[in-house]
Amino acid sequence: MNFKRKGIMLVIASPSGAGKTSITRNLLKSDNNLTMSISLTTRKMRKGEIDGKDYHFKTIDEFNEMREKDELLEWAKVHDNYYATPKAQVDEMIKNGKDVVFDIDYQGTQQLYEQRRADMVSVFILPPSISELAARLKGRALDSEDVIARRLKNAKIEIDHWAEYDFVLINDKLEEAIDEVKVILKATRLARVRQLELSSFVKDLQSQIDRL
Amino acid sequence: MNFKRKGIMLVIASPSGAGKTSITRNLLKSDNNLTMSISLTTRKMRKGEIDGKDYHFKTIDEFNEMREKDELLEWAKVHDNYYATPKAQVDEMIKNGKDVVFDIDYQGTQQLYEQRRADMVSVFILPPSISELAARLKGRALDSEDVIARRLKNAKIEIDHWAEYDFVLINDKLEEAIDEVKVILKATRLARVRQLELSSFVKDLQSQIDRL
Repeated sequence: MNFKRKGIMLVIASPSGAGKTSITRNLLKSDNNLTMSISLTTRKMRKGEIDGKDYHFKTIDEFNEMREKDELLEWAKVHDNYYATPKAQVDEMIKNGKDVVFDIDYQGTQQLYEQRRADMVSVFILPPSISELAARLKGRALDSEDVIARRLKNAKIEIDHWAEYDFVLINDKLEEAIDEVKVILKATRLARVRQLELSSFVKDLQSQIDRL
Repeated sequence: MNFKRKGIMLVIASPSGAGKTSITRNLLKSDNNLTMSISLTTRKMRKGEIDGKDYHFKTIDEFNEMREKDELLEWAKVHDNYYATPKAQVDEMIKNGKDVVFDIDYQGTQQLYEQRRADMVSVFILPPSISELAARLKGRALDSEDVIARRLKNAKIEIDHWAEYDFVLINDKLEEAIDEVKVILKATRLARVRQLELSSFVKDLQSQIDRL
């Protein structure tokens, strides 16, 4: 029996290379009720990017105005550019029972916790080992040796925050990790606190007993 | 990757006839890591019952002694007989990563919450309607009309406590309800708080980074 349900904010975090992107892509493909949260950014649009799909591209003034009006759920500055999650779009989806997945780091997660903890479930993905993490970063051939070295050092800071997440998975076999995140999402959807019409359903059951 | 894990205390509660027993039996059959909690009782052993399998049969003096020594997780008096859950057997299983399922009512659940909330996940099963509940009680032909009428009245009291459970499922189709409880158990097993060796695994990952 399906009730009207509150949407879930699903945070999937991991050090770079641990498999977050593969897991998220797979989830989005296999689950119609799940949407990716689209961040806004003040950085320049790159070739091939689409405004409103890859990011909401904004000027610094627009970003500052939204921040001052408390219209952001979280924001961060990375290499002189700002990135943020607009509040309105997320709240609208959650209200309509849509689940939203977030690709944010531990600092973004902490900001989200402050504002929307009851709506969130958070998953942290760890690599089985650092040599495996290094091999994956080298294997995807996206970055120079220097950048990979920096990503590995950053991994230490990110990993330091593992205990702030509801679930911590080791991505040893990608298929298993994907299945585990699916199970987490499925169970989270079943939680009592998300079933908005249970209370009236139960009242109705009880009046059926009274009429016996 | 599998870590040493703390066991889960899984409470499945429902009004009589809503399907708790079918769901629990199916879970126990399909899941090797799950064991039924064996209650102790002061009532007389019935024909065919086995001490230590169906119940731990105790005298009233033995029960009183255990209660005074705080050796019980919960207890209740039903029709002049006492029923209780011995603490030691449950704690031993949880410590060894075994999951234990409890067939107790809302009062038993409340007593368990007081002592072991962090180890518990609780599921309440509702019938799709009271006419369906009545039909199931009549269909199993275990009880007289009078007893069925009393069970339906008791259902109201039990249902009143739905909001004290982590998950509330409507048992509309038994197979679906079974799958849902399996998903809940699977996700609960993945929770960070139950993975006892994560902390040392993470420390090891970080020292691998330091050695780079």
